[in-house]
Amino acid sequence: MRIAVDAMGGDNAPKAIVEGIVLAAKEFKDIEFILYGDEVAINQYLDGEANIKIVHTDEKINSEDDPVRSIRRKKKASMVLAAQAVKNKEADALFSAGNTGALLTAGLLIIGRIKGIDRPGLLVTLPVMTKENSTFTLMDVGANADTKPENIHQYAILGTEYAKFVRGVEHPTVGLLNNGTEENKGNDITKRAFQLLKADKSIHFIGNVEARELLNGVADVVVTDGFTGNAVLKTIEGTALSMMQLIKSAIYDNGPKAKLGGLLMKDSLSGMKDVLDYSKHGGSVLFGVKAPVVKTHGSTEKEAVYFTIKQIHEMLASKVIDDLVEQFETKNTDQEK
Amino acid sequence: MRIAVDAMGGDNAPKAIVEGIVLAAKEFKDIEFILYGDEVAINQYLDGEANIKIVHTDEKINSEDDPVRSIRRKKKASMVLAAQAVKNKEADALFSAGNTGALLTAGLLIIGRIKGIDRPGLLVTLPVMTKENSTFTLMDVGANADTKPENIHQYAILGTEYAKFVRGVEHPTVGLLNNGTEENKGNDITKRAFQLLKADKSIHFIGNVEARELLNGVADVVVTDGFTGNAVLKTIEGTALSMMQLIKSAIYDNGPKAKLGGLLMKDSLSGMKDVLDYSKHGGSVLFGVKAPVVKTHGSTEKEAVYFTIKQIHEMLASKVIDDLVEQFETKNTDQEK
Repeated sequence: MRIAVDAMGGDNAPKAIVEGIVLAAKEFKDIEFILYGDEVAINQYLDGEANIKIVHTDEKINSEDDPVRSIRRKKKASMVLAAQAVKNKEADALFSAGNTGALLTAGLLIIGRIKGIDRPGLLVTLPVMTKENSTFTLMDVGANADTKPENIHQYAILGTEYAKFVRGVEHPTVGLLNNGTEENKGNDITKRAFQLLKADKSIHFIGNVEARELLNGVADVVVTDGFTGNAVLKTIEGTALSMMQLIKSAIYDNGPKAKLGGLLMKDSLSGMKDVLDYSKHGGSVLFGVKAPVVKTHGSTEKEAVYFTIKQIHEMLASKVIDDLVEQFETKNTDQEK
Repeated sequence: MRIAVDAMGGDNAPKAIVEGIVLAAKEFKDIEFILYGDEVAINQYLDGEANIKIVHTDEKINSEDDPVRSIRRKKKASMVLAAQAVKNKEADALFSAGNTGALLTAGLLIIGRIKGIDRPGLLVTLPVMTKENSTFTLMDVGANADTKPENIHQYAILGTEYAKFVRGVEHPTVGLLNNGTEENKGNDITKRAFQLLKADKSIHFIGNVEARELLNGVADVVVTDGFTGNAVLKTIEGTALSMMQLIKSAIYDNGPKAKLGGLLMKDSLSGMKDVLDYSKHGGSVLFGVKAPVVKTHGSTEKEAVYFTIKQIHEMLASKVIDDLVEQFETKNTDQEK
């Protein structure tokens, strides 16, 4: 399997990206990495790894660039070249830590949607806080700000597929994020989405779920429109971060007794940080396009890059995309009959 | 000032409600409380307070009752009688810890909207975690699942009014919750709401804000549609609760060293709990109706009831509703000219 890497995307590029790729290249000998970016800068962090090659380019997309315009005009940008490689079957997946909007655009315009999927969505896998080694998948967290009930229905199929193939959950439960658990709750979109989900016997729909229960593992897959999903994901991040700061100040701003207490609790508090660190479950996936397109945080470090490559390896090895193509093309043919 | 109290609403009613009212009655001698509910049950918790009287009724609305139907049919329910009292000018405000949907319905159908306000919204005041004694107001957290840009614009005016009159913020900043900070970000609704907010010189609009920044005090007032606001509020609650559980298990499930550490940090951790406890900023207000209609959590304890009464006292003393009536009626007259 071959992964095209935008080596210049993100705040710590190319250093963190290349160091993470080197970590992954040592473990996954079956992956060939093609790194797009500044050859001299990239080479500093390489040590002659046989499964990493570089394709040089001077151009890159910046975080403040307009997504659609930059993808169309910066034809030699590292992200664009990496996406082109996937399109031309020179690579099987695309990885970047750069401009999210631009990556979504590259995924949609260059790599392209799977036939039958109207709106690919952005999917993340987050830790269930109350159960060790348990996760849930949330989709869409921001690919589509305006969403139809039919899109949410497709997210449920896509999320189920991801949970089965990549996370190894046998019969993933699907919940619809809503403002109450009763069937009649919601806005116009969720009320209609509920009926579509209820009628689809190919998924294991368990009804409406509330945002309060997400981190308790209320469902394996939670679907929502991209606007709400984005707000919920950012609220989780913001709240968790604020609380970690509160804990820090509870330790350091409360005199020697609290400081000693914090010292004694150091190991267990760092275990807590591990639970919260969702980068080990990989990056966010633009799911529904013809190849894995995966993004990590712009501020990513090498460990997060490594875990994202592991996730892409899982996606490629499981052939989840092939299965999606087959499923949706069969559906289309069914409908055309 | 007179407050009509639904003494039978909430999981711990009437005990927690009446005990909280007794606490408040001792401090606020200028309030007359009218408690609606089971006279015998209520009387157990009273000690002849001069400013508390009871109006007996056997009927009440349960948490699982259909909101609209129960308000229409249970004519003698404690919540309905309390709302009627406000409508008939026998009381100035309505307080309940009962069925939220029913309370919203009672507010809208019995007490009624202020002329010129299309959709009253539900408003909460939450702590800013990074600054002591600092708060922000979020609206709408769930009165209206389907929202127009014009409704969000009115929430901005309502939230500004609340921040000025009740929280004492001189020039409250207003942020629009969105999926990015740039002006062109958002879904169809937020893009149009942005333009309405930008054009209104009577409020101090600072642009789009992201959910990640809410608890950092990014704006004094944050406005959003009721579906997203509901999801964001419940996500904050769920995440904070999960993290408190993680801290607990970091202390208790990690051997004697961590337990001792936790003991030494006890005071500072309980300070942390104080920051998170937003019940001291009062309950959620259905804002935009002709009188304060305020709700606390169904699982509320007497302290939360006390703080909510304090909040209603503030609302009545500041005459915020009178000012709203004047503002919106003037606007209407302006438009009619």
